[in-house]
Amino acid sequence: MRQAGRYLPEYRMIREKAGDFLKLCFSPELAAQVTLQPVRRFGFDAAILFSDILVVPHALGQPVQFALGEGPQLDAIADRRGLARLKAEVDHSMLTPIYETINRVKADLPREVALLGFCGAPWTVASYMIAGGGTSEQEPARRFAYGDPDGFAELIDKLVDASASYLVRQLQAGADAVQIFDTWAGVLPADEFQRWCVDPTARIIAKVRGHVPGAKVIGFPRGVGTALLRYVEDVPVDAVGLDWTVDPAFARDQIQWRVPVQGNLDPLVLLAGGAALDRAVDNILEAFSERPFIFNLGHGILPQTPIAHVEQMLARVRGT
Amino acid sequence: MRQAGRYLPEYRMIREKAGDFLKLCFSPELAAQVTLQPVRRFGFDAAILFSDILVVPHALGQPVQFALGEGPQLDAIADRRGLARLKAEVDHSMLTPIYETINRVKADLPREVALLGFCGAPWTVASYMIAGGGTSEQEPARRFAYGDPDGFAELIDKLVDASASYLVRQLQAGADAVQIFDTWAGVLPADEFQRWCVDPTARIIAKVRGHVPGAKVIGFPRGVGTALLRYVEDVPVDAVGLDWTVDPAFARDQIQWRVPVQGNLDPLVLLAGGAALDRAVDNILEAFSERPFIFNLGHGILPQTPIAHVEQMLARVRGT
Repeated sequence: MRQAGRYLPEYRMIREKAGDFLKLCFSPELAAQVTLQPVRRFGFDAAILFSDILVVPHALGQPVQFALGEGPQLDAIADRRGLARLKAEVDHSMLTPIYETINRVKADLPREVALLGFCGAPWTVASYMIAGGGTSEQEPARRFAYGDPDGFAELIDKLVDASASYLVRQLQAGADAVQIFDTWAGVLPADEFQRWCVDPTARIIAKVRGHVPGAKVIGFPRGVGTALLRYVEDVPVDAVGLDWTVDPAFARDQIQWRVPVQGNLDPLVLLAGGAALDRAVDNILEAFSERPFIFNLGHGILPQTPIAHVEQMLARVRGT
Repeated sequence: MRQAGRYLPEYRMIREKAGDFLKLCFSPELAAQVTLQPVRRFGFDAAILFSDILVVPHALGQPVQFALGEGPQLDAIADRRGLARLKAEVDHSMLTPIYETINRVKADLPREVALLGFCGAPWTVASYMIAGGGTSEQEPARRFAYGDPDGFAELIDKLVDASASYLVRQLQAGADAVQIFDTWAGVLPADEFQRWCVDPTARIIAKVRGHVPGAKVIGFPRGVGTALLRYVEDVPVDAVGLDWTVDPAFARDQIQWRVPVQGNLDPLVLLAGGAALDRAVDNILEAFSERPFIFNLGHGILPQTPIAHVEQMLARVRGT
């Protein structure tokens, strides 16, 4: 999950300096600083590239804007004509600053701290491209996919290629592993989940490993419930991220013996702090400590989160 | 799921006549007409009371408003002082028009058509009461529950009592079965789901059956994923509603042998129609036809749904 953000005063300073959010993502010096901030402050075991999943549509010719305090905005793709306006391939020259950020971060990180790159999964990215932003259940993309499955498949295929080559460059630039975030996987029925999430993500990983043998990949299919089982059966991830709603007992019994898990503290209990936070941390440690696991939040950290709560959580996890 | 609504021209006519949405819910003659409309047009096997889950907070002294084209609005409950302003018990005199609607509908329905009443589950209703409306992940209520679990438990307890007595009166007025909708159950971690959804819903059912022995209850914990297993183990429902994201194969293998299932067509595929709709209907029929099951949508019907698509779905289900 994103580690840097508005809950850190050092982030807010740089964010102000950069002005636009996307400008920050595309400024290697500033993005590298921001990526390193949480590791410097908290001594995390891994750094997470500071960027956004929507840089891929941006580099496919669908410009993205982030208005202050609002979500991302794109010119919605309504039909095949909208699809036809996209570039045939992702323009890596637009993404070069991100590869340079990775270079810089890697050079500054202690050897024992891993650097994680990432991209959005094709379904999630497509759902923003079609809606022109986030919606409560990504209905525009679901309607598009029902109404014109072939056109939608074209978009997904383009995103599979774009995402794979984007991840390959991230790995070549120095990322130790990459994550694939499928934030909106949970709004789909089972067959659509298989077709638009599971299969395309598996294809990305095959492509990435074709170029970078043994590449390490973490998947994050948010909110998919029972379909987690399908995901870990069919997508060859090295670890799977669990959102905060996944029952740790279920994940331990059904998932963790197949593949290491990552997660899954409720970001809201981190914000709330107190005894509830301690209890929630303990639950996760108890459930997952017998097998390989990465302690993490079950979604992005919230801007109002007090730093003292992050410290409380870390002390609990580290037993210090 | 709600059957009547804006997709029906006969509904829109009455809606216009009634003016305010809540007024419509509280006008027995109009609400009864609206309840009967889908049964008359489509010959459904059951009628669903036309009402809203937020009549319960309304009758607890927290007025609800529905502005045209927007979601419900309540004065948000921020803290214990807000809780203290609620009535000690639900005011049934405010709900009398609903019991009268049930009376009227029951008198007009053919004997072989069942009438279903309903209420919202305490967690879902509480989440609106605390947020003052719907939010994307009901964060205000989750924060309230983490920060003041005892205060939150008080609210849940009050809603357990109110919902139970509300359902008892619905059954006494002529409802053949009742549904408990937990629309927002899916945003909670496992322990919170157990405490705020599973246990209170089980308590409601025990109370209802204390007054109406053998009362039939259908539960609908939306979006809870793997926690469906906990729900059907711990909540003594006679059937469980499945939202459209539940994998039919999973539900058949893990749920349906314990308890009949209801669902779970994606409302968006009904809106989309065509071959995708036929395929989706077939999937559900194939998965569930071996054991008791109620064909239904996996959530409420969307206002833009073409009536011809409802007819297409029905012909497919009925094999006509």
